[in-house]
Amino acid sequence: MKKKDTAPKQAITTTPFPNSTKIYVAGKIHPQIRVAMREIKLNDTIDSLTKKRTPNQPITVYDTSGPYTDPSQNINVHNGISRIREEWINSREDVETLNSFTSKYCNERLANKSLDHLRFNHLHKPKRAKKGKNVSQMYYAKRGIITPEMEYVAIRENQRIDEMTHLSKQHAGQDFGANIPEKITAEFVREEIAKGRAVLPSNINHPESEPMILGRNFLVKINANIGNSATTSSIEEEVEKAVWACRWGADNIMDLSTGKNIHETREWIIRNSPVPVGTVPIYQALEKVNGVAEDLTWEIFRDTLIEQAEQGVDYFTIHAGVRLRYVPMTAKRITGIVSRGGSIMAKWCLAHHKESFLYTHFEEICEIMKAYDVAFSLGDGLRPGCIADANDEAQFAELETLGELTKIAWKHDVQTFIEGPGHVPMHMIKANMDKQLEACGEAPFYTLGPLTTDIAPAYDHITSGIGAAMIGWYGTAMLCYVTPKEHLGLPNKEDVRTGVITYKLAAHAADLAKGHPGAQHRDDVLSKARFEFRWEDQFNVSLDPEKAREYHDETLPAEGAKIAHFCSMCGPKFCSMKISQEVRDFAAENRVEEDEVIAIGMKEKSKEFKEKGSEVYL
Amino acid sequence: MKKKDTAPKQAITTTPFPNSTKIYVAGKIHPQIRVAMREIKLNDTIDSLTKKRTPNQPITVYDTSGPYTDPSQNINVHNGISRIREEWINSREDVETLNSFTSKYCNERLANKSLDHLRFNHLHKPKRAKKGKNVSQMYYAKRGIITPEMEYVAIRENQRIDEMTHLSKQHAGQDFGANIPEKITAEFVREEIAKGRAVLPSNINHPESEPMILGRNFLVKINANIGNSATTSSIEEEVEKAVWACRWGADNIMDLSTGKNIHETREWIIRNSPVPVGTVPIYQALEKVNGVAEDLTWEIFRDTLIEQAEQGVDYFTIHAGVRLRYVPMTAKRITGIVSRGGSIMAKWCLAHHKESFLYTHFEEICEIMKAYDVAFSLGDGLRPGCIADANDEAQFAELETLGELTKIAWKHDVQTFIEGPGHVPMHMIKANMDKQLEACGEAPFYTLGPLTTDIAPAYDHITSGIGAAMIGWYGTAMLCYVTPKEHLGLPNKEDVRTGVITYKLAAHAADLAKGHPGAQHRDDVLSKARFEFRWEDQFNVSLDPEKAREYHDETLPAEGAKIAHFCSMCGPKFCSMKISQEVRDFAAENRVEEDEVIAIGMKEKSKEFKEKGSEVYL
Repeated sequence: MKKKDTAPKQAITTTPFPNSTKIYVAGKIHPQIRVAMREIKLNDTIDSLTKKRTPNQPITVYDTSGPYTDPSQNINVHNGISRIREEWINSREDVETLNSFTSKYCNERLANKSLDHLRFNHLHKPKRAKKGKNVSQMYYAKRGIITPEMEYVAIRENQRIDEMTHLSKQHAGQDFGANIPEKITAEFVREEIAKGRAVLPSNINHPESEPMILGRNFLVKINANIGNSATTSSIEEEVEKAVWACRWGADNIMDLSTGKNIHETREWIIRNSPVPVGTVPIYQALEKVNGVAEDLTWEIFRDTLIEQAEQGVDYFTIHAGVRLRYVPMTAKRITGIVSRGGSIMAKWCLAHHKESFLYTHFEEICEIMKAYDVAFSLGDGLRPGCIADANDEAQFAELETLGELTKIAWKHDVQTFIEGPGHVPMHMIKANMDKQLEACGEAPFYTLGPLTTDIAPAYDHITSGIGAAMIGWYGTAMLCYVTPKEHLGLPNKEDVRTGVITYKLAAHAADLAKGHPGAQHRDDVLSKARFEFRWEDQFNVSLDPEKAREYHDETLPAEGAKIAHFCSMCGPKFCSMKISQEVRDFAAENRVEEDEVIAIGMKEKSKEFKEKGSEVYL
Repeated sequence: MKKKDTAPKQAITTTPFPNSTKIYVAGKIHPQIRVAMREIKLNDTIDSLTKKRTPNQPITVYDTSGPYTDPSQNINVHNGISRIREEWINSREDVETLNSFTSKYCNERLANKSLDHLRFNHLHKPKRAKKGKNVSQMYYAKRGIITPEMEYVAIRENQRIDEMTHLSKQHAGQDFGANIPEKITAEFVREEIAKGRAVLPSNINHPESEPMILGRNFLVKINANIGNSATTSSIEEEVEKAVWACRWGADNIMDLSTGKNIHETREWIIRNSPVPVGTVPIYQALEKVNGVAEDLTWEIFRDTLIEQAEQGVDYFTIHAGVRLRYVPMTAKRITGIVSRGGSIMAKWCLAHHKESFLYTHFEEICEIMKAYDVAFSLGDGLRPGCIADANDEAQFAELETLGELTKIAWKHDVQTFIEGPGHVPMHMIKANMDKQLEACGEAPFYTLGPLTTDIAPAYDHITSGIGAAMIGWYGTAMLCYVTPKEHLGLPNKEDVRTGVITYKLAAHAADLAKGHPGAQHRDDVLSKARFEFRWEDQFNVSLDPEKAREYHDETLPAEGAKIAHFCSMCGPKFCSMKISQEVRDFAAENRVEEDEVIAIGMKEKSKEFKEKGSEVYL
């Protein structure tokens, strides 16, 4: 054991962000909770005439990077990260710790000595709801219980907005029927979960996860897909993929690994993931029947659900809406069925001429979900794969079924959200949101893009980023990222970063458009820094400080350029900062109203400018 | 002279696009015109069961790359490209060829022997409207004349749509009051120009330009800014910047060069540019007064306009809407005035306490414009530089003035379009379009982005690409590109390519959303190729074939992978193509209606699938 504990730490990125400190905000209802945030310190504003310094208040930003950016944490992938929720879960006294894993497959893997070298060292015994108990956050919420998880997300969503001095009056948003309060309270979180309008993914076997919430009255979240590639990668590499995605802003990850050792790989990822982890269990089930879809059975699938639930997967994509009768509706499409899960199930249905076992066994699936608090991500197996196929009969027929299943899930108090397309031209995006809200009783929507055109492979993070920002504004709770490699190949680390940042900016653009309280503060802080030529602050407040700095330095690499009152675009002759400052000073000194400024001020300024040698712009 | 003609051709990119041929479509009203387009040949569809080949019709795409991608053209930057419009202009008999240039500054430069090594070899004598004549396309349009330029753009806009076999029924668009006909006729082009709703930039001294049109009833266009950097670049490098931008899809370029030799550099660019060229003349005027804005005079500015008009600049950005009284309105902004031209004029107004000479001499400017057919791009000097400043009093006050000036320009039959912001959150974008249409009598709108958030420097091609796609859908005629270096540094060639492609895909997404006839065809062709695993066709039909291929080859470099019926994302087990094909075949063979397919088909399929070994997916 000891040997393995000396993990090569350098494989995991743990560098904190520049000028940033990890801070922890304590709970009030639950004082034991410590909500992680990132505080970015800013430089002083220096008046270019008087050289007077005015301090700038630090800014707190939402932080998905987990303990990896906290230098006080000892990171060792062989131990896993802190199990921050363990005590909260235990104290509810509704779970039991099992002596062994329930899944047959899991126990086979454990018994296989040849896999020992792949295994996570410190396996924890699985937890499950006590007989007759339901441990879902929805169950608690409906009974009026505010869990520590709920208070955590309330504090996290607020990002200390009320402690911030706002630099401008925030624009009112347009939220299309959402209802975002000025300040998120734990009670509001509870209500939203109880109504099914929000989901807090929190498998009791993934206590390492820092709680986060999906819902259209909260900040828009993003998901990054990870998964091992054909070439074998080391355990550290697999964990690093997750850490890397979270570093840049992934609120969730989905592990879409395939191949022989997914069970073991998944354990490593979950034990080291500070964000909820989702999977598509049918992928692993298919591996178990050697890729022959018709050989899938309910029993194999069921065992896979339990296997993954006991490892700690927080949500399952389940394509239970692909019904036998919908398959022919895809016949006239240009791109038929493009979902992997959807095509597996379509194949099974056609081969057996039977309704999908996911559909017929749906209530049994609910029973499993609520024993671990795994959430449903109801998959859109019939989503359109191109512009021509958008919003067609097959897609919307499936959506109706997903709505029907949502109501069944809610009957069991199982948290549920709904997956959406895909490829949709801009003017047809809103119909997706509207129909989803209506069909699925306002359950959170989780979309891939949508891509707004098909003609730009290699740039599909952008074709889809456009659609993602728009559908986020319309009310989608989570956006599944797309990397530049979409349709072409497997993303490398740089692609993951590009995909995550693209989706983070799209989500933020949506938050601004919805008028999410405090969202605009980060824009204001960055823009003020930009206008005052505080280059370092501009980099540090941005979503990708490293790349911003790198791009700046390509043209003006000297350190002095980062305090220069000009940039390479306009050169030293032009600086638009001072004129505004002088007009502002004039108005303040003369205590006049705006109309008078126009009438009197201009004359004064004219004189003053000439006296000063007219150097308004340095 | 001879020595210089041996230009280093390799500096200019002339490689044709893969599987593409330049074709030329002749005019009907004006048989002498030859409209350039790019035809992409496609591979056959091969049925995976029967191996039967079905040919795919080639696709014609809009081509901005000019003669550079036509191997039959002899490219030599020292000669300039073909003067395709020269005969059209001469045959109107309303222009005179001057014996010498009119601008004092121009003649000083010509007389300076020390500049001989910088000079374009084959200077043409400038043309100007005969006394009392107006040579603008708007003037002709109002008088019912369909010029060759008008017929050229009509043919060009249609891209041979009516000769294409459509692969799907195109989605109806939502065009927010635009009125896009099923087929663009030359008469429609004339009407739109006459009404001021469209602009066809076409300086009589830039006969090299292939006509293109800006208007919300036409394809959305994009502009790329080029310009020499602080470090001196060679003439070839300057020309290559323009050629490179056009290669990837720029419909227009703006030359924003500063420094000593802009006059000479501009000559090289225009003589080699197949697209209209715009400038901001105040930049050069400011150089002439050594960067001291207060020393600017109407006389210096006027001479600059004539200098550039006689070189062939197709449109001028003129910030005539920055009025003295608006300057104090920017005092409370976070980022004050961010437009270079706007701040120069604000500085001049304040220093002199006078109304801007651009505003007071506006009618004289119109007189110059109509003598060469230079179009106005009325600049938004008070555009917002951050989210907080969006849609404020200063911005909209200036817009009203731009509307007033538009009407004056139209009185002179001077073609006019209007520049727009900037930084605007998504929900406030449409108000910009609506106000612009109302204030400016439906003159075309030309916007920079807008950027939908400020927090992602290094990704502002994307933050702005989101806004650009949306405002293009709402009715903006041209989108000014933003590169990843925006706010940080000067773009290199790769940045220009990324910026152009991003804006090209945004413009196309807008065309789809507006339901521009035939826009969807390219998406359909690409998606069909994708679904049929015709990898080469997928690359070749895309906006950036090289990058798409490069990304594919990173994961699966073998040539065989480009005919493989799988890709690296899902691997060989999954292929969603065949199931659709089989369901389709079943319906055709059995001649049944859809309901019956559902009822009967599924049973048949079930049987058949099992007989075939259930291998629906290869």
